[in-house]
Amino acid sequence: MAPEYYDFGPYKIHHSSVFYTNDLCFAFVNLRPAVPAKRVADLTAEEIADLWMIAQKVGRQLESYHKASSLTFCIQDGPQAGQTVPHVHIHILPRRNGDYENNDDIYEDINEKEKELKEKLEVDKERKERSLEEMALEADEYRKTFII
Amino acid sequence: MAPEYYDFGPYKIHHSSVFYTNDLCFAFVNLRPAVPAKRVADLTAEEIADLWMIAQKVGRQLESYHKASSLTFCIQDGPQAGQTVPHVHIHILPRRNGDYENNDDIYEDINEKEKELKEKLEVDKERKERSLEEMALEADEYRKTFII
Repeated sequence: MAPEYYDFGPYKIHHSSVFYTNDLCFAFVNLRPAVPAKRVADLTAEEIADLWMIAQKVGRQLESYHKASSLTFCIQDGPQAGQTVPHVHIHILPRRNGDYENNDDIYEDINEKEKELKEKLEVDKERKERSLEEMALEADEYRKTFII
Repeated sequence: MAPEYYDFGPYKIHHSSVFYTNDLCFAFVNLRPAVPAKRVADLTAEEIADLWMIAQKVGRQLESYHKASSLTFCIQDGPQAGQTVPHVHIHILPRRNGDYENNDDIYEDINEKEKELKEKLEVDKERKERSLEEMALEADEYRKTFII
């Protein structure tokens, strides 16, 4: 049976935000392994392989769902790379022609998202339901649409 | 026997620049699968799994070699994500405290590197030996030092 909460570093992710799970990984807005690994180097070969097989599938569906034509995959692996949540996770962003005036500006947004993620998770700790509901809506949509 | 050149999209990579190979992948300054895949979605499950198992190992050694404390892993998957060479490849960058004034500025460098890569490869097509030699020196160093 699916747990009510998934562990993500020191945080709990409510099951309603999760749109895909298998034995090793789970995906909600970002994709992450289920094991409590801080760094890519902490994953077993099986875990890193599984994580990226799923990332490939999630990416393909995200690109199609958002009618995009490219993807940015990014791992901030450690605090000096901008990681704020101490649990390995992949940012996957659908990309379109002209989505950013300068192609790199997306990375500022990734860093912002990474900070927001931490803040949102801190907020979730205090159970502010609006953020949980918002995330559940997005996850519902992906769960309905994606074939992974 | 190792080939003299490895295929990288429309380009040839001289074996002296390659510091690691297996049946599915090869690594020179960046890491890429040996198959002629443009997009992450073009890889088989075995290929994406292998690519990232090697990326994990290369990353660990790069971080240690450069005395760094974090890593940035990035795939520009498609032209709208900044990909200039049409062959899947991972940028792996060792990161240190204060290596960039703004943590994101590294992505401008990735984009610059991506453009330079294409230019360098165009130059290599014309066999300007200096660039080949420079790359061979770096690859030699990694080949000597890394245990992958």
